[in-house]
Amino acid sequence: MSTAQANHILFPTVGIVGVGLLGASLGLALKKNQIASRIVGSGRSSTNTNLALQMGAVDVIVPLDQLTQEADLIIFCVPVAQTKSVLEGIKQGLNSHTLVMDVGSTKLDVVATAKETLGEAVRQFVPAHPIAGGALHGAAAAKDDLYQDRQVIVCPLQENAPQDIERIIQLWTRLGSQVYQMAALQHDHIFAAVSHLPHVLSYALMLQIANSEDASMKFDHAGAGFRDFTRIAGSSPEMWRDITLANRQEVLKELKTYQQILQTIQKAIEQEDGASLEKLFTIASQSRNLWKGV
Amino acid sequence: MSTAQANHILFPTVGIVGVGLLGASLGLALKKNQIASRIVGSGRSSTNTNLALQMGAVDVIVPLDQLTQEADLIIFCVPVAQTKSVLEGIKQGLNSHTLVMDVGSTKLDVVATAKETLGEAVRQFVPAHPIAGGALHGAAAAKDDLYQDRQVIVCPLQENAPQDIERIIQLWTRLGSQVYQMAALQHDHIFAAVSHLPHVLSYALMLQIANSEDASMKFDHAGAGFRDFTRIAGSSPEMWRDITLANRQEVLKELKTYQQILQTIQKAIEQEDGASLEKLFTIASQSRNLWKGV
Repeated sequence: MSTAQANHILFPTVGIVGVGLLGASLGLALKKNQIASRIVGSGRSSTNTNLALQMGAVDVIVPLDQLTQEADLIIFCVPVAQTKSVLEGIKQGLNSHTLVMDVGSTKLDVVATAKETLGEAVRQFVPAHPIAGGALHGAAAAKDDLYQDRQVIVCPLQENAPQDIERIIQLWTRLGSQVYQMAALQHDHIFAAVSHLPHVLSYALMLQIANSEDASMKFDHAGAGFRDFTRIAGSSPEMWRDITLANRQEVLKELKTYQQILQTIQKAIEQEDGASLEKLFTIASQSRNLWKGV
Repeated sequence: MSTAQANHILFPTVGIVGVGLLGASLGLALKKNQIASRIVGSGRSSTNTNLALQMGAVDVIVPLDQLTQEADLIIFCVPVAQTKSVLEGIKQGLNSHTLVMDVGSTKLDVVATAKETLGEAVRQFVPAHPIAGGALHGAAAAKDDLYQDRQVIVCPLQENAPQDIERIIQLWTRLGSQVYQMAALQHDHIFAAVSHLPHVLSYALMLQIANSEDASMKFDHAGAGFRDFTRIAGSSPEMWRDITLANRQEVLKELKTYQQILQTIQKAIEQEDGASLEKLFTIASQSRNLWKGV
């Protein structure tokens, strides 16, 4: 199949809205892998736009209407709460051949906003979520292999043409990502449990220690377990405020289940019920050691 | 001071009771740094005792009474719940010049057990807690630099002679550890917050996902944040059952405070109170990014 050729330019001009870690890394990766010939960028932070230009992640920074006009593919890499204003900004001038993709950590809310804002043009919008990023943010942390060997979840809409979905999948495949397709609903359910909840839990532990009277003494003696457990608490508060609210039904469901589990553990400790504790910890420990993850 | 000399043999014969990760690593490190000339070991797992012999972490495996007779320093590296039976085993034949040390993750319970079991001989017992180990366990994971650049908390008793405390501190210093002294009460309070609670929280998340109907799908899509958050859930269930119960008053206090914080976050999500969420996440995120930890 000719479209599967390694060096085929898939999208001559790609417009990247938001050139932080994800956006600038995409710019670098799309050029390195010859998926795009030209990258035009937009952004609200001059620190990021200047850096993205300097590192060659974008060829030029342009206003949103010009980016919309020129791009064969528009990728928006902005916090999920800004989805609506970006979609409103590109709707007017959107060419009928242009595809649109996001990289957000939540999907149902983005899909709802896209349907509401783009109307019929939503057929041009293919939602995606690369599982990449982490605690670092900003263009300064960008790298051209950020998406290599990472999972990317694509959540096609009923409105999408099969060949458009295929081109988006090709883009990620050529960046070295493993692509999975699933419904937006399923995506949000799964990531509430394995990503959104752990972020909330990690923030909560940092809050607890930071707010305690002997915080500095505690931080002085915290070790490697604490370091790993709280790594994700270094993530952008703005981004995670948005994700938590965007996926609040699923996050609340998981958060409530979690508190029930803590209650079960608490009771076992109060009753000095070592057998129950060991049983619970063993299920957890075995699951973790069997996990074939990243 | 002659005792501070780098190659001075501090304890001609060291007896190590329990040759898992911590015990076998100590054997290797004490020999490598010429702190001991001879290591005698005891253990209940023949897998570990055979491995410890093979790797040279111990010179010989002997029964506990013989170890007690020969050793100038007895270090017990067993799960905290086995403290009592080990102390009872060594009490009878304990020479008056021999020092005793533990490496347990909790201290108040160990001190109480030692006072009760050893009586006046508790003056020979100096409690210690090296912040090392982690998810791996068993002699197979042992290494001679496990304690290098790690913190070791020494919790001297009023009964200890200053020169005995000093020799124990020298031992750890010569292994490359940073030694801190504090009371057992303070130790248990601090580590409940920065170590014991995070372990419980990490186990709880693994339990939640393992017990869900779509567990395998969730595990398939879990990423780097999940990996780090749950690393400590791979730890020994038996060890953490013991620690959690041994330090249950402090662990319960921290666990209850944590659930209050989750309630605060839950309310902010339910009320879609983005400003409060961002404020909470920002305190957490800033504290994490300012942390100068391991």
